[in-house]
Amino acid sequence: MIAASVIRDLQALLPASAVLTVREDVAPYASDGLSAYRCQPGVVVLPDTEAQVIAILRLCHAARVPVIARGAGTGLSGGALPREDAVLLGLAKFNRILRLDPLARTARVQPGVRNLAISEAAAPYGLYYAPDPSSQIACSIGGNVAENSGGVHCLKYGLTVNNVMRVRAVTMDGEALEIGSEALDSPGYDLLALMHGSEGMLAVITEVTVKLLAKPERAQVVLAAFDQVETAGAAVSAIIAGGILPAGLEMMDKPAIAAAEAFVHAGYPLDAAAILLVEVDGTNEEVSDAVLRVHDILAASGATEIRTANNEAERLKFWAGRKNAFPAVGRMSPDYYCMDGTIPRRALPAVLGGIADLSAQYGLRVANVFHAGDGNLHPLILYDASTPGELEKTEAFGAKILELCVAHGGTITGEHGVGVEKIDQMCVQFRPLELQAFHAVKAAFDPQGLLNPGKAVPSLHRCAELGAMHVHGGQLPHPELPRF
Amino acid sequence: MIAASVIRDLQALLPASAVLTVREDVAPYASDGLSAYRCQPGVVVLPDTEAQVIAILRLCHAARVPVIARGAGTGLSGGALPREDAVLLGLAKFNRILRLDPLARTARVQPGVRNLAISEAAAPYGLYYAPDPSSQIACSIGGNVAENSGGVHCLKYGLTVNNVMRVRAVTMDGEALEIGSEALDSPGYDLLALMHGSEGMLAVITEVTVKLLAKPERAQVVLAAFDQVETAGAAVSAIIAGGILPAGLEMMDKPAIAAAEAFVHAGYPLDAAAILLVEVDGTNEEVSDAVLRVHDILAASGATEIRTANNEAERLKFWAGRKNAFPAVGRMSPDYYCMDGTIPRRALPAVLGGIADLSAQYGLRVANVFHAGDGNLHPLILYDASTPGELEKTEAFGAKILELCVAHGGTITGEHGVGVEKIDQMCVQFRPLELQAFHAVKAAFDPQGLLNPGKAVPSLHRCAELGAMHVHGGQLPHPELPRF
Repeated sequence: MIAASVIRDLQALLPASAVLTVREDVAPYASDGLSAYRCQPGVVVLPDTEAQVIAILRLCHAARVPVIARGAGTGLSGGALPREDAVLLGLAKFNRILRLDPLARTARVQPGVRNLAISEAAAPYGLYYAPDPSSQIACSIGGNVAENSGGVHCLKYGLTVNNVMRVRAVTMDGEALEIGSEALDSPGYDLLALMHGSEGMLAVITEVTVKLLAKPERAQVVLAAFDQVETAGAAVSAIIAGGILPAGLEMMDKPAIAAAEAFVHAGYPLDAAAILLVEVDGTNEEVSDAVLRVHDILAASGATEIRTANNEAERLKFWAGRKNAFPAVGRMSPDYYCMDGTIPRRALPAVLGGIADLSAQYGLRVANVFHAGDGNLHPLILYDASTPGELEKTEAFGAKILELCVAHGGTITGEHGVGVEKIDQMCVQFRPLELQAFHAVKAAFDPQGLLNPGKAVPSLHRCAELGAMHVHGGQLPHPELPRF
Repeated sequence: MIAASVIRDLQALLPASAVLTVREDVAPYASDGLSAYRCQPGVVVLPDTEAQVIAILRLCHAARVPVIARGAGTGLSGGALPREDAVLLGLAKFNRILRLDPLARTARVQPGVRNLAISEAAAPYGLYYAPDPSSQIACSIGGNVAENSGGVHCLKYGLTVNNVMRVRAVTMDGEALEIGSEALDSPGYDLLALMHGSEGMLAVITEVTVKLLAKPERAQVVLAAFDQVETAGAAVSAIIAGGILPAGLEMMDKPAIAAAEAFVHAGYPLDAAAILLVEVDGTNEEVSDAVLRVHDILAASGATEIRTANNEAERLKFWAGRKNAFPAVGRMSPDYYCMDGTIPRRALPAVLGGIADLSAQYGLRVANVFHAGDGNLHPLILYDASTPGELEKTEAFGAKILELCVAHGGTITGEHGVGVEKIDQMCVQFRPLELQAFHAVKAAFDPQGLLNPGKAVPSLHRCAELGAMHVHGGQLPHPELPRF
């Protein structure tokens, strides 16, 4: 609970409509995209100027009240999960594009601007903003920075951190920092990278300057079918080894293909064990050349069928299956749980095998959809939340998948963040030493631990209670996870 | 001075040959590549195992003795400048390539391994390490991480931070951190980016895992002459706007052309006000296509002459002038001072004009050689150190150039770091707020301030004494620099 005096002080700072306290008003903020976790926020504030953000943070800092920043609420790891004793600071009103400079190819925007809205505003100049999380129609750029979001095209165009030049961010004590520059590199410690993926734990972002890219002249997609997942995995490595950097390189396994095909009729081969979608972009000549080379590599890698989209309509159809894979899987099962581990590309066959074994062991179906090019897996565990105990079993299965990723030299999250969802797996990923370094960095910005407490970085105490199930850098053999 | 007891303790830890105390033994360590600054180190230690590094740091931490890490000593901003009261920790003996994995395309190396040695070791597999500072034959990878080094090819292939996956680093209290992962992204705060460019202030690097890239099938260079520097600058923007990402995009002005031509007879047009060297790489087809497009853009941008290297020998000859520009300028003047500012590309004409004005004002000649594609200027100020007062005048001129870069939205360093050289300009680049954030990050790793004290980040007190000559983000008009 938040003291009535704090709420009165917030009401004095902000217009009446910007302070929500009534149960039905705050209810929509009770969860983000990880809707299995819910909590009523103590109060929701909706400022629309940086001065208000500063005032709110100073007030909360003085009163020692925790603050949780929230963008569009599309996050999948519970990074914006409220607390009853905390102020939920919604940034939805920060929705203006402040400046779009087509010559410098930059856009200065407020944090609540939707990812896709930036590309829409840049389109008249032939420009776009590259990172494209699948929630891009709804998710906001401030949240993208907080989670260092990726997307289908991040293999070629990088993560959010590679596409942002500057941010303004207000620390818990109400100071607005100017971070980054328009130059290639900025002197001093790399605070810009530090803000990316910090999950709202270091500062509240109030402005973001992103890079815009020229829209490629042409994009083309090649679809390849394989009769074994392992062969498909090897083809992924062969493409990269062949010096091709696809704009997208996606893989779907048999259950995912079946679900997608039943849903959008993309024309996927239903008998395939796995399909790859390889998109190349660039000038007309570059694309023609790359498509031929991709075709050759896929053929040499044992693809049982290779199709090239003949026109833009067919290209979009090929993608429609992949882009709708999550809702398609949703039709197969009352509920599904989307995991987000990352592994070195070479470990693809072994980890997929391990997931299949775990699926049998837990008695839960899995569909695999993933950014194969950068080793970012999205296993979807199918379950029924109305069956007692099945959610818990699903979460345990998911945790095992993440530990499997770590055991193969990967990480527990590719692009969805840690939040509350994967906080225990951080104990698997990191040793106490590295966790201590994280806590020290946190303390440099927020010594009282008031910004988004309990997210992203577990306490050493929590890890110790979990039995310090540490596997580091994949140096220990799968599947036995050591306990020490 | 370092207490005799500390030196005795160091001698007890290390073999006799690894602790240098005699004046003639420590003399070679008195400066790095910024040789105008010199200081005899109190003692030089040359460990060859991480365990020794840990023991040295623990000993110094307990005795409150500062430690300055040094790689190959090629740094140009005095980042490895010793102190009489500090231990100079040389990492030259850490010169082993620990593992080269051609399939995963990674190399795990010790920090003293030379930059070029990595590419040499990778060459049999058709691979190379992309960042190529001009000192790459001598500079070491640990120093590259500490300075976040770039090079001619960083426009396309990124800085060191974009090409390193993991580091091991020992903090001042002797704890070895494992930072980064082989995956695209790592959870937790981005300590990997934080280590890059931290100039030895946060931890001592003991191992680096770099990405290797496939050698492009072909590279080709186009040389273009312009009768105005401004036109050349506009052509740079036109190439990037045309969707071409050159592997290198370099510019030289008339004095630099004259010096280079007299030195290596590269065949440069001596009547040009500026030349551009545009290198494209990729597959044979891609390069053929890109060369034609570059040619068209250069012609449309008003180039007075365009030449394409007809063969590899001619390509290397075109580059020879650029690669030898610094020693070539060295033949024109007893001394020169190489600056390293970065500006947004659009500011090229204005900043070059400003440098010409300052040159007249200070009565010192300047040759401009730079990475035009990423706006990284290297103005070389010609002077004679034997003329009383000329070094001071040169340094004042150099400082003005950096302030000019900041006033145009640029930064005071592109790839050479801050070190001792540009520490006062950090007061120009940043407000006290951002400097406080840097100090807080420093304190998170090294609360006693024992690692490389006095470098990179100035104290607020120092900035206040300089008169807080703050220009931020280029929002204030050139040429009047505000004082407040």
